[in-house]
Amino acid sequence: MSGDFQDWMTSVQARVEAALAECLPRAGIAARLHEAMRYAVLGGGKRVRPLLVFAAGELAAAPEDALLASALAVELIHAYSLTHDDLPAMDNDVLRRGRPTCHVEFDEATALLVGDALQARAFELLAAPGLIAPTRQLKLLATLARASGSLGMAGGQAVDLAAVGKTLTQPELELMHAMKTGALIRAAVFLGAGCGKTALTDSRQAKLDQFAKRAGLLFQVIDDLLDCTASTATLGKTAGKDKAADKPTYVSLMGLAAARDYAESLRQEALQSLAGFGAKAERLVALTHFICARRF
Amino acid sequence: MSGDFQDWMTSVQARVEAALAECLPRAGIAARLHEAMRYAVLGGGKRVRPLLVFAAGELAAAPEDALLASALAVELIHAYSLTHDDLPAMDNDVLRRGRPTCHVEFDEATALLVGDALQARAFELLAAPGLIAPTRQLKLLATLARASGSLGMAGGQAVDLAAVGKTLTQPELELMHAMKTGALIRAAVFLGAGCGKTALTDSRQAKLDQFAKRAGLLFQVIDDLLDCTASTATLGKTAGKDKAADKPTYVSLMGLAAARDYAESLRQEALQSLAGFGAKAERLVALTHFICARRF
Repeated sequence: MSGDFQDWMTSVQARVEAALAECLPRAGIAARLHEAMRYAVLGGGKRVRPLLVFAAGELAAAPEDALLASALAVELIHAYSLTHDDLPAMDNDVLRRGRPTCHVEFDEATALLVGDALQARAFELLAAPGLIAPTRQLKLLATLARASGSLGMAGGQAVDLAAVGKTLTQPELELMHAMKTGALIRAAVFLGAGCGKTALTDSRQAKLDQFAKRAGLLFQVIDDLLDCTASTATLGKTAGKDKAADKPTYVSLMGLAAARDYAESLRQEALQSLAGFGAKAERLVALTHFICARRF
Repeated sequence: MSGDFQDWMTSVQARVEAALAECLPRAGIAARLHEAMRYAVLGGGKRVRPLLVFAAGELAAAPEDALLASALAVELIHAYSLTHDDLPAMDNDVLRRGRPTCHVEFDEATALLVGDALQARAFELLAAPGLIAPTRQLKLLATLARASGSLGMAGGQAVDLAAVGKTLTQPELELMHAMKTGALIRAAVFLGAGCGKTALTDSRQAKLDQFAKRAGLLFQVIDDLLDCTASTATLGKTAGKDKAADKPTYVSLMGLAAARDYAESLRQEALQSLAGFGAKAERLVALTHFICARRF
C-alpha cells in the first residue's frame, strides 16, 4: 500500500468519522435512543463503503459536500443493517467491532428503533438541498433505496436466513450475496460517480458497475475466508459464526484453497473493469488491493 | 357524513389500495419476504394518512400521480412502524386489523425485515422521477424522512416505551404523541399540499401546519378513547392494551369525560385553522369530522 493511498484513506476516514458524529442527534427527549444510535455508528468500522464513494467520485471530479452526504447515507444504511442483523431474532450476535452489540449494550427495542431511525436519517441526509442537480440527486436517492430494500440488502438477508442448514449452489450463493452485501457496495460506487457534475457515458457506467459487482463479491469471499480463519480478537466480531450457524459460505462450498483462488480471480476481473479509466481510477484500484489485504 | 365525501373517500381508498398492491414486489428469490410485506400492508386499514395527503392536495390543485406517490410513501412508513411496534421486543401484540400480526403469521426475523424493506420502498417511491419540480420533491423526501426518524415517529416510540409504568404530565404526553403519531400526520398534510405546482404562502403553510398538529393530537386522543371503551372485535386490534401495559394515555391522565371534552376542543381548533382556505378545505374539514366519528 503506497503512502499516498494511506494518507488519502486516513483523510477520508477522518472526514467521514467527524461528519458521522456531527449528523447524529444528541440528547433531546429521545436521548437514550440518540445515545444508542451514536453507539451503533461511531467509534469503529473501516468505512469501506464511504471510501468507495469517495474513490468513485474521483472518476467524475465530484464535489466534496455531495460525496460526504452520499458516504454518510450509505454508511448509516450499513450501520442500521448490522444493528438489525445482530438482533436475537436474526443472527443473534453479541460482539461487533470489539464491543457488545447494540441490543446487548442497550436493549432489543432500542436496537430495533436505532436501525429504523438510522435508515430514515440516511435518506434525510441524501435529500439535503443544493448538493448536485436535483434530478440527479433523486436518482441517487432512488438507487440507494432500491439497493437497501427487498430486492437488495433486506431481501438478501431474508434469503440468507432461509438458507441456514441448506446446501446452496454457487449461483444461489452468489445471488444471495449480490443482494445482501453486493447491492449496497454497487450503490456506493454508483453514488460516488453520480455526484459528478456530468454523468458518465453509458459504456463507462457499465464498466464501473462491472467493477462494483466484482468488488462486492470479492469483499464477501474475503469475509467468508476471514470468518473461517481469523480469530475473534482480530475480527472484533464472533469468528466462525457462519459455520456455527450452519450457513453456506464460499469456504464451505468450495473449500479454503479454491475460495482463495476465486478471490484472486475476482480481484483481477475487478481491476480489468477499471482499465479504461486510467489514472482517475487509482483510488479504486488501491481500494481493491486493500480489501484483499485484510488478514486471512 | 355527506354522500359526496363518502364517494370521494371510497374513491381515494380504492386508488390507494390498488396502487399499494401494485407497488409491492411479488415472488422472486425473496418471495417469502415479499409475501409478508404484502400481508403487512394490504387488506386492511382506513388509509387515514393517504386520505390526508389527497385532502391537503386539494388546497394546491396537486397532480394525481404526485399525490399517489406521496400517499403510498406515507402509508408504507405507517405500515412498517405498525409491523415493528407489534414485535415482542416492543408492544408484543398478536392482533392487528383483525388478523394475526406479521411476526405471528410469519416469524420475527421476517417481520423485522418487512419493516426495513417497507421503509426503503417508501423512499424509493417518493424519489421517482418526474413527479413534481425536483427541488420541491427533495423537500418532500427530507420532510418525510425527518418525520419518520429519531426526532419524529421512531423517537416517539422510544419515549413511549420508556414511559411504561410512569406518570407523565400532559405536556410530556403531548410531546410524545406529537412525535409518535403527530409527526407522520403532519408530514402527510405537508406532502399533500407540497405536491401542488406552486408552494403555499408562508402564512397559509403555517395555518395548515397548525391544523395538522391539532388533527394529529385529535387522532391520538380518539385512539386513547377507543382503546379504553371499544371492544377488540370493533377495533380489530387488542382493546385495553394501553391500560394492560400500564401506558399513560389521555384517559388515564384526564379521565374519560375530560378526554372527550378535550377531543371536542381540538376538533374546533383544527377547523378554525382551516377557516381561511374556503371551499378548497372541504375535504380536510370532512376528514376531521370523520376522525371524530369513529365509535367510542
